[in-house]
Amino acid sequence: MQFQIDKTDGKARACTITTAHSTIQTPVFMPVGTVGAVKALDAVDLQTFIKPEIILGNTYHLYLRPGDDVVAKMGNLHGFTKFPKSFLTDSGGFQAFSLSDNVKIDEEGIHFKSHIDGSKHYFTPKKVIDIQNNLGSDIMMILDDLVALPATQERIKASIERTTRWAEESINYHRENQKKGIGVDQNIFAIIQGGTDKAFREKSAKELCALDFDGFAIGGLSVGEANQDMYDTVEWTTQFMPEDKPRYLMGVGTPEDLVENVYRGVDMFDCVMPTRNARNGTLFTSFGKMHIKNAAYTTDENPIDPECGCMVCQNYSRSYMRHLFRAHEITYLRLSTIHNLYYYLDLMKQMREAISEGKFEEFRKEFYAKRGVEIE
Amino acid sequence: MQFQIDKTDGKARACTITTAHSTIQTPVFMPVGTVGAVKALDAVDLQTFIKPEIILGNTYHLYLRPGDDVVAKMGNLHGFTKFPKSFLTDSGGFQAFSLSDNVKIDEEGIHFKSHIDGSKHYFTPKKVIDIQNNLGSDIMMILDDLVALPATQERIKASIERTTRWAEESINYHRENQKKGIGVDQNIFAIIQGGTDKAFREKSAKELCALDFDGFAIGGLSVGEANQDMYDTVEWTTQFMPEDKPRYLMGVGTPEDLVENVYRGVDMFDCVMPTRNARNGTLFTSFGKMHIKNAAYTTDENPIDPECGCMVCQNYSRSYMRHLFRAHEITYLRLSTIHNLYYYLDLMKQMREAISEGKFEEFRKEFYAKRGVEIE
Repeated sequence: MQFQIDKTDGKARACTITTAHSTIQTPVFMPVGTVGAVKALDAVDLQTFIKPEIILGNTYHLYLRPGDDVVAKMGNLHGFTKFPKSFLTDSGGFQAFSLSDNVKIDEEGIHFKSHIDGSKHYFTPKKVIDIQNNLGSDIMMILDDLVALPATQERIKASIERTTRWAEESINYHRENQKKGIGVDQNIFAIIQGGTDKAFREKSAKELCALDFDGFAIGGLSVGEANQDMYDTVEWTTQFMPEDKPRYLMGVGTPEDLVENVYRGVDMFDCVMPTRNARNGTLFTSFGKMHIKNAAYTTDENPIDPECGCMVCQNYSRSYMRHLFRAHEITYLRLSTIHNLYYYLDLMKQMREAISEGKFEEFRKEFYAKRGVEIE
Repeated sequence: MQFQIDKTDGKARACTITTAHSTIQTPVFMPVGTVGAVKALDAVDLQTFIKPEIILGNTYHLYLRPGDDVVAKMGNLHGFTKFPKSFLTDSGGFQAFSLSDNVKIDEEGIHFKSHIDGSKHYFTPKKVIDIQNNLGSDIMMILDDLVALPATQERIKASIERTTRWAEESINYHRENQKKGIGVDQNIFAIIQGGTDKAFREKSAKELCALDFDGFAIGGLSVGEANQDMYDTVEWTTQFMPEDKPRYLMGVGTPEDLVENVYRGVDMFDCVMPTRNARNGTLFTSFGKMHIKNAAYTTDENPIDPECGCMVCQNYSRSYMRHLFRAHEITYLRLSTIHNLYYYLDLMKQMREAISEGKFEEFRKEFYAKRGVEIE
């Protein structure tokens, strides 16, 4: 992976990441393609209407079904899904933790039962790298030790220490693998934990960033804490992260979250919000959120967002979109997903332009002004 | 509507129908777009991947939701859905009969309760034309009197007589409307009934075909009778239908049904089979039906049908399609729909070519041979 900072504006960064499969300009939002498809879309849709340079796949899901061996046999995620650009895969730990029954974490890894058939599985730092080698993702994530909140300080401390130990095991294993020709084009990111506690974040960041990872993620945020706590934690943590490597804030977030965290120096994001909210009837626009089921749109001939350049806004009225939503049409799910993802990726593009022109503060004020919010 | 016979081969016909919105080459299969969208697809999909010149909309559904007044206000079905080619709308009678509660038929029309909210409604021959005027379809269907089978000969006879009376009311109303500038570009078809009874079919066909309709449909088949009974009834009925007007067999059917009924002189078809079966995992191919969930396809790199030119077969493997189906991905619903509809429309195109070249018998034999079936 090549990484280059093209421009900074305050703490905000416009960078370029080059993987074996694509050139990614940051700040970047990665659509979530859990089981090897962004929900409701196919690879042709992505390439035609959204044009992402990187999407995310979920290791937990792909490992259980169809199985990483099947994906490997079909030419990795790229060959299987026919999406030719970059993939980032998570470690599977978070899903094992949140979707499974009977989760048990020990010093070596995570025991869990499949949410599909109840079968027993065990994720270790090495095992999730083996799986991600089979998936052939461009960026792999390490297994980290997650803590159910609230937790004692002792438990959190132990989790950070275990995460560091697993990170060491992961990076050593991956670099050894690469010497043997395994995962040569694959990159690996560590995940900084520590909740909203400054001391823990500092400790976790310093320990992990001392290791030879290709990039670093901030995990464990956007789990119910106040927005300002998330922003403060990101701002605090980024100071301990190297400048010359990508910074990825996992599972975030709203358009406002993206703006605020780019402002604080984050390069990469992923979240199910644009896709999941689309399916539930919430559409994102330049003037804020819109609930498409609203009766006010019954005969509204306008597109969802008159400022939007997406295929849906070029073709369809709010009236038609509302009708499809109310009639539970499958067609609605895809069209709303295309709109929301286009909006998210376009927002990132606008931020990159603002950073490149040294006008990020101005962009940020304008972004809020369009939503009727004034900021300092 | 202009209608022209381009070529005949035995009883099979290759014709051209020209409406205000498109030029339709027959034999033609019309994808079903119940509520103003072919399930899982949008108008861009249709125009890009399927290229139908005519699709079907269901009057019952559109009348109840969003309401034909809403559709009218949004520029008829063409403006509302943005599908610019032709629409055929049914009368709504069949759905009122099959989907509603408390259906009561009297001499003037059909009383029913909405399957959505239980509200009471009344379809009369004139009312369903008013609705279809609002929908702005290119081809409207008359209200007919449906009979729940089994029924007495008396009841069937009464239904045919009532259908003829409603047909007279419909055609007179529509022609008067047109003189007033209403529905000027809209065409209207009558529906021949009579089950599999030759005498009833003859009576119904003769009475209706004496009236000034733009085309004629054969209704009340593909409702559980043996295939051969359907084919025999169609063969019997077409002899009483005018040569110089389109012949439409409603709600039919399998690929085999299409071949057999084109062979017997039918021009137009519609059916939910390609779209509904797709969603349930049954895919149509040049060598017969395929059940995509079959474990044999787990790592099958072949497309669904190596002879198929559709977008799905150009891009995706059976392995990926099977995975998406098993994982209940929305993406599967659209891709399988695209494949099945492409197959159906391509089959019609092949039949037209065979008729044009005077080789329909040869085509028919080959069609069955590929399925491992020998015919005389």
